[in-house]
Amino acid sequence: MEYRIERDTLGEMRVPADKLWGAQTQRSYQNFRIGTERMPREIIRVFAVLKKSAALVNQRLGKLDSEKAEAIAAAADEVLQGKWDEHFPLVVWQTGSGTQSNMNVNEVIANRANQLLERQGSALRVHPNDDVNKAQSSNDTFPTAMHVAGLIAVEDQVLPALAALKETLRQKSEEYRDVIKIGRTHLQDATPLTLGQEISGWHRMLEKSERMITESAEYLRELAIGGTAVGTGINAHPRFGEMVAEEISRLTGKRFVSAVNKFHALTSHDELVHVHGAFKALAADLMKIANDVRWLASGPRSGIGEITIPANEPGSSIMPGKVNPTQSEALTMVVCQVMGNDAAIGFAASQGNFELNVFKPVIIYNFLQSARLLADAMRSFCDNCAVGIEPNRPVIERNLERSLMLVTALNPHIGYEKAATVAKLAHQEGITLREAAVKSGMLTAEEFDRIVRPENMIHPKE
Amino acid sequence: MEYRIERDTLGEMRVPADKLWGAQTQRSYQNFRIGTERMPREIIRVFAVLKKSAALVNQRLGKLDSEKAEAIAAAADEVLQGKWDEHFPLVVWQTGSGTQSNMNVNEVIANRANQLLERQGSALRVHPNDDVNKAQSSNDTFPTAMHVAGLIAVEDQVLPALAALKETLRQKSEEYRDVIKIGRTHLQDATPLTLGQEISGWHRMLEKSERMITESAEYLRELAIGGTAVGTGINAHPRFGEMVAEEISRLTGKRFVSAVNKFHALTSHDELVHVHGAFKALAADLMKIANDVRWLASGPRSGIGEITIPANEPGSSIMPGKVNPTQSEALTMVVCQVMGNDAAIGFAASQGNFELNVFKPVIIYNFLQSARLLADAMRSFCDNCAVGIEPNRPVIERNLERSLMLVTALNPHIGYEKAATVAKLAHQEGITLREAAVKSGMLTAEEFDRIVRPENMIHPKE
Amino acid sequence: MEYRIERDTLGEMRVPADKLWGAQTQRSYQNFRIGTERMPREIIRVFAVLKKSAALVNQRLGKLDSEKAEAIAAAADEVLQGKWDEHFPLVVWQTGSGTQSNMNVNEVIANRANQLLERQGSALRVHPNDDVNKAQSSNDTFPTAMHVAGLIAVEDQVLPALAALKETLRQKSEEYRDVIKIGRTHLQDATPLTLGQEISGWHRMLEKSERMITESAEYLRELAIGGTAVGTGINAHPRFGEMVAEEISRLTGKRFVSAVNKFHALTSHDELVHVHGAFKALAADLMKIANDVRWLASGPRSGIGEITIPANEPGSSIMPGKVNPTQSEALTMVVCQVMGNDAAIGFAASQGNFELNVFKPVIIYNFLQSARLLADAMRSFCDNCAVGIEPNRPVIERNLERSLMLVTALNPHIGYEKAATVAKLAHQEGITLREAAVKSGMLTAEEFDRIVRPENMIHPKE
Amino acid sequence: MEYRIERDTLGEMRVPADKLWGAQTQRSYQNFRIGTERMPREIIRVFAVLKKSAALVNQRLGKLDSEKAEAIAAAADEVLQGKWDEHFPLVVWQTGSGTQSNMNVNEVIANRANQLLERQGSALRVHPNDDVNKAQSSNDTFPTAMHVAGLIAVEDQVLPALAALKETLRQKSEEYRDVIKIGRTHLQDATPLTLGQEISGWHRMLEKSERMITESAEYLRELAIGGTAVGTGINAHPRFGEMVAEEISRLTGKRFVSAVNKFHALTSHDELVHVHGAFKALAADLMKIANDVRWLASGPRSGIGEITIPANEPGSSIMPGKVNPTQSEALTMVVCQVMGNDAAIGFAASQGNFELNVFKPVIIYNFLQSARLLADAMRSFCDNCAVGIEPNRPVIERNLERSLMLVTALNPHIGYEKAATVAKLAHQEGITLREAAVKSGMLTAEEFDRIVRPENMIHPKE
Repeated sequence: MEYRIERDTLGEMRVPADKLWGAQTQRSYQNFRIGTERMPREIIRVFAVLKKSAALVNQRLGKLDSEKAEAIAAAADEVLQGKWDEHFPLVVWQTGSGTQSNMNVNEVIANRANQLLERQGSALRVHPNDDVNKAQSSNDTFPTAMHVAGLIAVEDQVLPALAALKETLRQKSEEYRDVIKIGRTHLQDATPLTLGQEISGWHRMLEKSERMITESAEYLRELAIGGTAVGTGINAHPRFGEMVAEEISRLTGKRFVSAVNKFHALTSHDELVHVHGAFKALAADLMKIANDVRWLASGPRSGIGEITIPANEPGSSIMPGKVNPTQSEALTMVVCQVMGNDAAIGFAASQGNFELNVFKPVIIYNFLQSARLLADAMRSFCDNCAVGIEPNRPVIERNLERSLMLVTALNPHIGYEKAATVAKLAHQEGITLREAAVKSGMLTAEEFDRIVRPENMIHPKE
Repeated sequence: MEYRIERDTLGEMRVPADKLWGAQTQRSYQNFRIGTERMPREIIRVFAVLKKSAALVNQRLGKLDSEKAEAIAAAADEVLQGKWDEHFPLVVWQTGSGTQSNMNVNEVIANRANQLLERQGSALRVHPNDDVNKAQSSNDTFPTAMHVAGLIAVEDQVLPALAALKETLRQKSEEYRDVIKIGRTHLQDATPLTLGQEISGWHRMLEKSERMITESAEYLRELAIGGTAVGTGINAHPRFGEMVAEEISRLTGKRFVSAVNKFHALTSHDELVHVHGAFKALAADLMKIANDVRWLASGPRSGIGEITIPANEPGSSIMPGKVNPTQSEALTMVVCQVMGNDAAIGFAASQGNFELNVFKPVIIYNFLQSARLLADAMRSFCDNCAVGIEPNRPVIERNLERSLMLVTALNPHIGYEKAATVAKLAHQEGITLREAAVKSGMLTAEEFDRIVRPENMIHPKE
Repeated sequence: MEYRIERDTLGEMRVPADKLWGAQTQRSYQNFRIGTERMPREIIRVFAVLKKSAALVNQRLGKLDSEKAEAIAAAADEVLQGKWDEHFPLVVWQTGSGTQSNMNVNEVIANRANQLLERQGSALRVHPNDDVNKAQSSNDTFPTAMHVAGLIAVEDQVLPALAALKETLRQKSEEYRDVIKIGRTHLQDATPLTLGQEISGWHRMLEKSERMITESAEYLRELAIGGTAVGTGINAHPRFGEMVAEEISRLTGKRFVSAVNKFHALTSHDELVHVHGAFKALAADLMKIANDVRWLASGPRSGIGEITIPANEPGSSIMPGKVNPTQSEALTMVVCQVMGNDAAIGFAASQGNFELNVFKPVIIYNFLQSARLLADAMRSFCDNCAVGIEPNRPVIERNLERSLMLVTALNPHIGYEKAATVAKLAHQEGITLREAAVKSGMLTAEEFDRIVRPENMIHPKE
Repeated sequence: MEYRIERDTLGEMRVPADKLWGAQTQRSYQNFRIGTERMPREIIRVFAVLKKSAALVNQRLGKLDSEKAEAIAAAADEVLQGKWDEHFPLVVWQTGSGTQSNMNVNEVIANRANQLLERQGSALRVHPNDDVNKAQSSNDTFPTAMHVAGLIAVEDQVLPALAALKETLRQKSEEYRDVIKIGRTHLQDATPLTLGQEISGWHRMLEKSERMITESAEYLRELAIGGTAVGTGINAHPRFGEMVAEEISRLTGKRFVSAVNKFHALTSHDELVHVHGAFKALAADLMKIANDVRWLASGPRSGIGEITIPANEPGSSIMPGKVNPTQSEALTMVVCQVMGNDAAIGFAASQGNFELNVFKPVIIYNFLQSARLLADAMRSFCDNCAVGIEPNRPVIERNLERSLMLVTALNPHIGYEKAATVAKLAHQEGITLREAAVKSGMLTAEEFDRIVRPENMIHPKE
């Protein structure tokens, strides 16, 4: 491999000749051979937007030569388009401020901008710190990138996927609103409800989570930019933070503002913890939905079997003809991951000291993974499973008819204790409730038929 | 011990003669000898409010005899006042619907109401299921109690304690807004800020958490009541849920409404997960604040020592004269507990099946413990530590003067690389920045003095 | 209330006249009004053993007057017997070294010893620091108490309860070793096994956990005692740690040794994290067992219903005659708690600094809660549920007969693909496998009957 | 792109013509577009070993034609060498049994084996299910692969890295065994110890973790292979499991055995939970070590500054000359991830039902990530930081001299209370302990000098 020599304040470094990165990136690349998790591409892309915004604002404020600013913006656009993806080799497990990824972006953009300037015949040269990073610090740019990438993940990934699954469940809930089936509490037979009602509970879960996530994500609109090294804004113009936030808003099409208190913005990630708490609430709900689906579809002959779901793959390498609820399984595994990520994020967010929290990369890595997994898994579950849920009517009807818990309708008529006697008699003798009611002498068959009607048990009554 | 015989639908039970509970409570008491954690008193109290509300509403709806309703209400009032606390012996680790605690309340209130009726010479008798539990199920009353108790804990415990600590920090931030000190990032000396600015970051953490908790707690206003057994509202009047929510609002002075979708209300606890996510964000911030306080106060001679805090107890049983940051320690231990509780709640909330989540007691036990601990620990930290924070000015000044990171002010003048050379020279030779700047020939002493002024480094500049 | 004046190195304090504690306890009592969780009684009891042991050893080493040593030992014995339980009012949420509870013990024992000395007419007086705490520090006594209490909890609570449940499962596994039933994977019908085999898997879980817990608990035998303030053993005799460990072994009947490296012993709680990791593995297994039990017992008519379990309580306050798997529910809630506690302990254990980890009380609080809950819940589940598990043979037989997955036996004869065709045909047409096999022309009825025999499918074959 | 048609029991699928995978892989590839986390390569490699072993054993048992067995073994070897890595496109978030990855391996090996057979002119054709998967099920092969990959990760990654760091710490501990420095408890000045003693505590942490991990990893030696579909071993020869375990042992050079109880082996992952519990104990210790290092190295002028560590990268993009403890930061971020992974694994392991736990991929994904990150981060920390730790002797000496906690040596001479008076006097008046002792009249200067000698305070004394 061929190398060129690059320098930083610690001295010279050999850098692969075909790479745009510089000495600091090279140092980090060599010093942190940890794991395979590269800094998420989403962060690199957002950094490109940020560096472009900063250059344009610095130019407007008269701090940066126009030619340089344009070269930086052009280089940043290329990074944004993914043209230089392989020039960002650093892993998540680096310095906890993300300084080395900030410098990686500064170096790649500076080197690329210099190529562009050279090509134009310009004698100007862009410096990674003095120009690309002007009026910035890793300490304010990295948390800025976290919030921007976080909000994009929420708005462009999680919420649309959530909405699609919610809509599917709404349709199913509507479609099966009259399919009366047995209810189950404690896994035991309970009073009836409709399949549509059951699904409406799932739908409501998503509706609530949608609101919780949307509301909590509002906190991500506040950006650290302008705080520079420790939150005071040293070396930045007083309007810099605000103007960059506006520029980022313009470029991303999402509203961002400058954080009210930059000392908070560098040291606390309570906003991401809070949004991820809403992710966790969603995850808990998804676990319940996915479990209900697979239990209701269990069988085909010796399970509950009240619904059917699409058969997407041969289920077993040894048992021929087996079909499994694989989408539920993928979704519930994602739930486990989100629960784990939540623990990692909460822990990391608690470990700030003085003017900085140096657990930023691990926080955003977990946050973006959760967002991606939740979004993808909801969409996969929606398209490959939920849309195909159908009631297995013969099973539903048989279960309903035999249910002992229809006895509950007798409470207002004969009281809880006598009703219990009827239910027990039916259970012990393996007879129907109706037979037991008559046999016990508590009601006539006609009274029973008038009172115990499932269709009257699925809503309140005056 | 003397006993009396009580009955339920499974048969007879011997119950201590001096206790108001009945057969079902007794069964649970015997069958669940697990741990020492009794069902939180807050839940028992809220149940009293709920049972009273239900009785009054049932009466209004013409479903319950007035005399009975009044007896139930009177008995419930006594429970609310804590008069019968030792008649609620059941532990958290019981049935996951809380049925046994619901029945414990039903039984105690019924038996006490019957004493009152008897005393009045009434021949009427209240039945725990048919009267006290009328139009209710454990499946809707227990989650109702969870939300009411949860909101009370948030509004009456957590938020006031948070506000008190926030106000103390606001005052401190204001008071020390001009005390310039060294900043620290990565635990390393960084550019300066004021002690007031540093504390303003802590203040902002509490301000944000306050908003997050307040907003997310809104979700607790929706009550499950009216859903009865499986969410359909079987055996309840259509207006029952709404009317009980109004009555509870009246009695507690807090606004509650009937949940839009009762199937959700019985099976999902996403609301509590979400609020606890905000607790966790607060906990992460408190960890940071408490750590900053104890690190800044570390010493007295070989630590950072830039602030002093009250000396509340002898710190050591072996080292005479030692004083320790004990309030920080208690607070950070509480943070650990809240993190653990968060994991327990998220897990439990994910395990619902069909029409019920049967992990309700463990969820509310952890939620209320977190609320209590956060509230108490914030108040303790505020009163016994935060109010007494004072700057140690000689140490602060010495640290500031010697700081190498004042060099950052040179960036706009001589560029990042030359500035680094100055800082390194000072570091290597153990001289001041000013000496190094002059020695390196990059600036005159006068230039240095004009540029490097801490008081100009604590805010942005045009 | 009446008070007396007590003093410590910070000055005078008013202490309730009827309490044996002193000034330091009083300070902590007033300064830490946090939560309701008092320092676990197990820790107080172990401290009594420790203080007695230390006094006897100090006497033997010629460092403590015999009369004083005997008075201390006598007072400690009274504490051990629980005679002074209400004299230990401090909560978990205090200083993170447990200093205040160590001093609480020192003060109560000193005051009580002085009462005894006075009664004997002795003029000697015991000092809480100089005598009761002689050659000790909170920093070595508290972690010593953690290990001793931890090992007692493991050996006297967790392991016996585990063994009892394991034995019950062994018996059930043996008893039902010939009850052939359908297997289920992915909740879908699979090849058969016997109920005894299924239960043997649960049994093996407990067997493994027993070994894991037993092995990992070995690490608790190492005690910090002898390390005093920072691990160096300052102010202790070189043989003190070892001799106290021997004395504690003698008094508790369990083997303890002096830790090889006291710097580790004060700063790391990796041993407790490790043992709790084994608790968590057990918890995960218990979740699976409890879930299997309640799913297999689900019904009574519209669930899986292949086993029956004891009906211990009326299951519902609204649905008469309902019986629920309440022991499974209590056990699975305990599992959630243990998972949460595991997170709290791991976090707390990671937060040591320099010569001390100051998260000791929260660690041992969670550890002992987990031990108690696991032990009690396993015993409750064993006695009130597992012993009563019985097969529901008619359901088991019907499910087995109809199973499509018996088709797997055809693989070696006709290959996976053809076997799949047979299974699908049976599924689609709602016919038996046998009918489908013949109809598809792949086997004769006689061939089918010879090959597809459940009793040949429950073990490997040559 | 060009395609070919492949078939499975659900019908035809179009598969990219240049890929060796078949219809089932293609289905999964299309149905699970979730996240970017591909099934870990370690699992694919171990599967290759497993398939080769199974083929050789099947051949020996007379169940598989030799020519086929050899072709399978040859194809598996190529997979093991990584030759076909891009032919394994499936993600972690698939069916929870890993069936689709098992089939991916079966299909690639079958197709590749058929190419080899064809090339040899053989007319035989290998079938993915009937031949490559012979006597196996995903349900026993996937957990087998989990254990084999898990043990390899422990023995070949984690333990060697741990040993290297341990050895570095041992050397440092030895090297600085005589550098007396101030101790710190509660972040407050405490009695002295040597830097070597301090580091010996870290060393002991690694020594303990090494033992805990080594012991708990023993459980991974038991393999599920031979259990096939539900643990009964249907369609396998009685000696198959044992013989394959031997063959895997031979090929990997690590000892494996057939699991005693296969029902456990398919449904419980308590072994992996347990080993990961030991990982977590290690992680907690690493957090403490990394924190100590960065706090001790804090400064350079306004921190504790008692040690220096290598300056590996420019620390700041805005503050020239800044150097940060980046290796500590990477390591502590890894600790957060391991804590999160631990929660994910425990949760997932608890969710088995009946004859299978279908959370296998998420468990092993997290386990292997933890192993890789711990190993890499320990090695990185060792090589780039720990080896370069050096005492900053002037700071250490100044801190020691000024320490008030040397007063502890006076306890045995003048008692705790008088000693406290001396310490306080020194603190309040800003004088030395010696001056305070004399001034207070409690000791002469000569007595003080004789008693208070740091070199006598770093070990016990008779």
